[in-house]
Amino acid sequence: MRLRNNPKAYEIMEENADLVILKPEEHKGHYHDIFEINQPLYIEIGMGKGDFIYQNALKHPENNYIGIEKFPSVLAAAINKINKNQSLPNLKLMHFDAIELENVFENGEIDHLFLNFSDPWPKKRHAKRRLTSSAFLDVYRRLLKKDGVIEFKTDNRGLFEYSLQSVTENNYHLDYVSLDLHNSPEADDNIMTEYERKFSVNGPIYKMIISDCKE
Amino acid sequence: MRLRNNPKAYEIMEENADLVILKPEEHKGHYHDIFEINQPLYIEIGMGKGDFIYQNALKHPENNYIGIEKFPSVLAAAINKINKNQSLPNLKLMHFDAIELENVFENGEIDHLFLNFSDPWPKKRHAKRRLTSSAFLDVYRRLLKKDGVIEFKTDNRGLFEYSLQSVTENNYHLDYVSLDLHNSPEADDNIMTEYERKFSVNGPIYKMIISDCKE
Repeated sequence: MRLRNNPKAYEIMEENADLVILKPEEHKGHYHDIFEINQPLYIEIGMGKGDFIYQNALKHPENNYIGIEKFPSVLAAAINKINKNQSLPNLKLMHFDAIELENVFENGEIDHLFLNFSDPWPKKRHAKRRLTSSAFLDVYRRLLKKDGVIEFKTDNRGLFEYSLQSVTENNYHLDYVSLDLHNSPEADDNIMTEYERKFSVNGPIYKMIISDCKE
Repeated sequence: MRLRNNPKAYEIMEENADLVILKPEEHKGHYHDIFEINQPLYIEIGMGKGDFIYQNALKHPENNYIGIEKFPSVLAAAINKINKNQSLPNLKLMHFDAIELENVFENGEIDHLFLNFSDPWPKKRHAKRRLTSSAFLDVYRRLLKKDGVIEFKTDNRGLFEYSLQSVTENNYHLDYVSLDLHNSPEADDNIMTEYERKFSVNGPIYKMIISDCKE
C-alpha cells in the first residue's frame, strides 16, 4: 500500500512509544515482556493501515498481536487510525522490513502469522521477494512454534497460484484453502483489510491456511 | 454428463469393436498390443462425448489414447460423434466405472491420466467417490508409470479446493496450477471438453497437473 510520503512519520512513531515498539531487535526472544499478559503471539507482516490487526486484537483479547509495516508513512497512518479507537493492551506495531524477521524474532517465538494482500512481485526475477517464496517459508518455519500456522489471503491470482506451488514444494500442509473466500461458509468470520474491502469487487479473494508438515 | 437413456447403447458398442475395447480386463498389462504402435498410454476417466480425447489423439499421434466412460448412453453418443470424423489408429474407448481401474490396468501401465470435470459429489458423505479422493489417488499412484502425471480440470470450486488439499495430503507434487485457465498463458494450448465450452462462461476453469513425489 503506497501513501504520500509523510515527513513526520518517524516523529509520529516516537510520540506513540506505548503503541509502537521502537527498537524491535532489543525484544528478540522476549516479546511477552512488553505485553500485560503472556499469551500467544500473532504477527501480521505488512499490516497496512492496521484495520485487520486492530479488529483481531479487539476480538481476541486472549492473544497478543504485533503488526509489522515497512513503509513509515503507512505505519504513521495506522497509528493515527488506531489512536481514534479504544486502545488495546494486546496490540503493538513495529516498523521494519520482512527481510529482517530473524533479527527481530527468536526461533519458535511466533504462534500465528498473517500475510494479507502481500506485494505480488509479478516479475519472475523478483519471485524471491514474494512473501511466500521458499526463502521466506523457511524463515517462517524457524520462527513459528510447533503447531504454528500461517494464514495468507490475496486477490492476486498469480501470487496465489505461485504460493500453492511454493507451499507444497516446501512441505507445508494445506490445512484450508478457499478460492472465493467472500462466498465461502467462512466469510462470516472473515476480518477484512482496508484493501480487501475496496478491491474485492474486482474478483475473488483467495485464502489458505498452512502449517509445517514436519515434526 | 447425463443423456437420455439409449436402449441401443450396448448394441452400438458391439457394432464398433474396432473403436471400443469390449472386454477391458482381457487386455490388462498389454494394452500396447491393441494399438498399431507401442507408445505412451494416455487415459481419460469420464470422457463424456469424447471431444477432448479425440482432439488429443488427433493432435498427438505419438501417444495412444483410451477414453473411459461409465454411462453406456454417453459412450454410445461418443462413438457416433467420433465415427463422423477421421478414424484414428491411436484412439480406443472403453466402458467401465473408475472403481474398476485396477481390474483393467496393470501397475505402472499408464503414462498420463486426464480427469476432466468429474462429478463433484458435493455431499461430504460422498467425498470418497470424488475422483481426487485419497483412495483414487492411491490407485492412480500404482497404475501410473514413474514420472507419470495427472491433469485435472474442473469448473467446480468446491471440488478443486478439496482436490488441492487431497493431493497435497497424499504427497503428490503440484507441478502446475491455474485458477483461471482460460485467462492463463496456457489457454492457447488448452483442448476443451464439450462441457467446458458450454459452461466456462459461468466462472473460471481450474486446472492442476500433479505427479507422484515419491521415488
